Amino acid sequence: MAGPLPISPLAPRTTPSLPRIAGVELAAVAAGLRYQGRDDLMLAVLAPGSVIAGVLTRSKTASAPVEWCRKNLSRGKARAIIVNAGNANAFTGKAGDRSVDEATRAVAAALKCARNEVFMASTGVIGQPMTTEKIVAAVPALARAVNGEGWAQAARAIMTTDTFPKLATQRAQIGDATVTINGFCKGSGMIAPDMATMLGFAFTDAKIPAPILQEILRAATDKSFNCITVDSDTSTSDTFLLAATGTARHARVIEANDPGLADFRRAVDALMIDLAQQVVKDGEGASKFIAITVTGATSNNAARKIGLSIANSPLVKTAIAGEDANWGRIVMAVGKSGEKADRDKLGISIGGVPITANGQVVPKYDETPVAQHIKGKHIEIGVDIGLGRGKAVVWTCDLTHGYIDINGSYRS
Amino acid sequence: MAGPLPISPLAPRTTPSLPRIAGVELAAVAAGLRYQGRDDLMLAVLAPGSVIAGVLTRSKTASAPVEWCRKNLSRGKARAIIVNAGNANAFTGKAGDRSVDEATRAVAAALKCARNEVFMASTGVIGQPMTTEKIVAAVPALARAVNGEGWAQAARAIMTTDTFPKLATQRAQIGDATVTINGFCKGSGMIAPDMATMLGFAFTDAKIPAPILQEILRAATDKSFNCITVDSDTSTSDTFLLAATGTARHARVIEANDPGLADFRRAVDALMIDLAQQVVKDGEGASKFIAITVTGATSNNAARKIGLSIANSPLVKTAIAGEDANWGRIVMAVGKSGEKADRDKLGISIGGVPITANGQVVPKYDETPVAQHIKGKHIEIGVDIGLGRGKAVVWTCDLTHGYIDINGSYRS
Repeated sequence: MAGPLPISPLAPRTTPSLPRIAGVELAAVAAGLRYQGRDDLMLAVLAPGSVIAGVLTRSKTASAPVEWCRKNLSRGKARAIIVNAGNANAFTGKAGDRSVDEATRAVAAALKCARNEVFMASTGVIGQPMTTEKIVAAVPALARAVNGEGWAQAARAIMTTDTFPKLATQRAQIGDATVTINGFCKGSGMIAPDMATMLGFAFTDAKIPAPILQEILRAATDKSFNCITVDSDTSTSDTFLLAATGTARHARVIEANDPGLADFRRAVDALMIDLAQQVVKDGEGASKFIAITVTGATSNNAARKIGLSIANSPLVKTAIAGEDANWGRIVMAVGKSGEKADRDKLGISIGGVPITANGQVVPKYDETPVAQHIKGKHIEIGVDIGLGRGKAVVWTCDLTHGYIDINGSYRS
Repeated sequence: MAGPLPISPLAPRTTPSLPRIAGVELAAVAAGLRYQGRDDLMLAVLAPGSVIAGVLTRSKTASAPVEWCRKNLSRGKARAIIVNAGNANAFTGKAGDRSVDEATRAVAAALKCARNEVFMASTGVIGQPMTTEKIVAAVPALARAVNGEGWAQAARAIMTTDTFPKLATQRAQIGDATVTINGFCKGSGMIAPDMATMLGFAFTDAKIPAPILQEILRAATDKSFNCITVDSDTSTSDTFLLAATGTARHARVIEANDPGLADFRRAVDALMIDLAQQVVKDGEGASKFIAITVTGATSNNAARKIGLSIANSPLVKTAIAGEDANWGRIVMAVGKSGEKADRDKLGISIGGVPITANGQVVPKYDETPVAQHIKGKHIEIGVDIGLGRGKAVVWTCDLTHGYIDINGSYRS
């Protein structure tokens, strides 16, 4: 690797400071798995009684830690999450499964908990054996070091090609109690639905049964990480876990459609959209953040598929990188999505300026304000299909020389 | 545009010289539609009695000339094909349909034939009105200039971002007669199934009824243009037409499965694979030609889908551009294809060197010969899924800085 990358021009100006959450303690350490001179191993310890929900990659070649999480999520109980950066432990065969065994066993021993309450995630190169002994050796000190303020350190420890740590926090009312949700994630390449994160972790003190937490997480994922794409590639490792310690004092939540959960759902959605957008803003080589709003499709799913067809088009993404308002490529991407469209009903706008109507460019189209908009860092594309009520918003970034620089030499 | 692009390093060393075909005459001219100092309008005139087959883009926002061809292909009769470069006449509304009307009317008048026997194709920028009067003005001289040797000139006239003209020729036996098939095509970006050509045209003196010719063309397309991808984008204009003048003297062909057609089918397949591979070799910015052979999938379709998932992966393509044998990204692309795969049965090879077995890297894997292979211009990737008998070969190119240079500023 060619040394640290410059921070994305789309990075937030400040890193949010995350409050404590009762029952969550974190620490990170430099275990020396791959990187030199930086933390690469993170441990989050959860109070007894904590529950967990998760969404995982749909890849048919998922990593060993993903398969471990999939197996244990159905129980819904968690005491710890351990995460390493630098090696994905994917396509590492039976040895990969043994690595997960050994690492989770070390954590369970240090915390005196059941091994199936220890969740694991790994990110980095695919297909290289893990040096698990380094993780095992680091666990006892990590378990002693955990504290309520380790958020930023933990977020940094899980980075790979990320150029900035990604953190977010929200508060929500459940009955009389104010609960907190903190989250962090990493990811900047190999980013596409389903599960664009690569890795993300959120924590709350709310007291919510695991099946309800799972339903809330799934719904929030569909509005956030499943609406972003950097390069259409889907990781073998994508994992988002949401843990709830239950330390907050609010009325018992019994069912998923409890109206008392509305503000909590809003907060989880907001947190995950915030994190997902940070991933796009750290897209490998990204110089522009692109929001694509599709309306008038035959269904919400059709709208999202059209949005992703535009967002994944290399020709659209390179045109925007070149600050060229080449809206004809948006027409092309709508056409190739496979979803129902009618040339003569299609309305395209960039930066709020209508460009097409009745199957052609609008009369006396003046490109000046569009050209101005496309020179900015935040590009708004609007597409109205004109056939129904389906809508979706999809976020992506442009495709630049930086993406090729980063990915032509990531491994070596 | 920034002047002519350098010729692709993957271009064939020589341009094949195409023989005459009785009943086919061509010419090209500089009509001044967009380019300066080069031909941009091509006319092919076919003998009376010629038949035609065609495959067209499945885009829902297809161009006006594509819709015109779709409407007239069912009749199967053709006297002329007119093609312009520089303007795609796509998303040009009713004015686009009028442009096709006027251009085909001019050709029909010059040749004294029915207008619905005049086929048209256009390539270039989407969404800009055509200056059809320039085409109409050029037609009479074009119709006078056609001759039996205009192949290379015609192939050059339809180029856009192509860096070399793409021509191929084959001979085949049908009964006692030797027939000829000549073809040429253009395309180097916005290239993906279905119909990766952008534009292609083939001609033969064989005497074959239009419905049988259509079946032969469809089968050859599935083995050729539908197995290539440059950037996963599908054009609004993709068109491949195959015309047969019927001037050859061979026994009557009555049905598609006539064994006497076997050599002709082989020749059409070979011609179209040759042309499709030339398109990949002229992929925008391409520095390496990549052949991906997928075996052991649950069906041929599954194999092709897996192959295209690898071929369209920006991470695989940038790794190869960087000469990095990052086979983990091939695992990722197999996993994201959605087709059935089993980590522990997956076998991956590069340059014929086995890399994976039993869900991990082979024991004592030596990357030296793989690293050597990947420095070449022709990269062979083998993927055995280990589940069935489905197989496919897919061709693509790498993703380089050149692609971004070309596409960041094509229009302006």
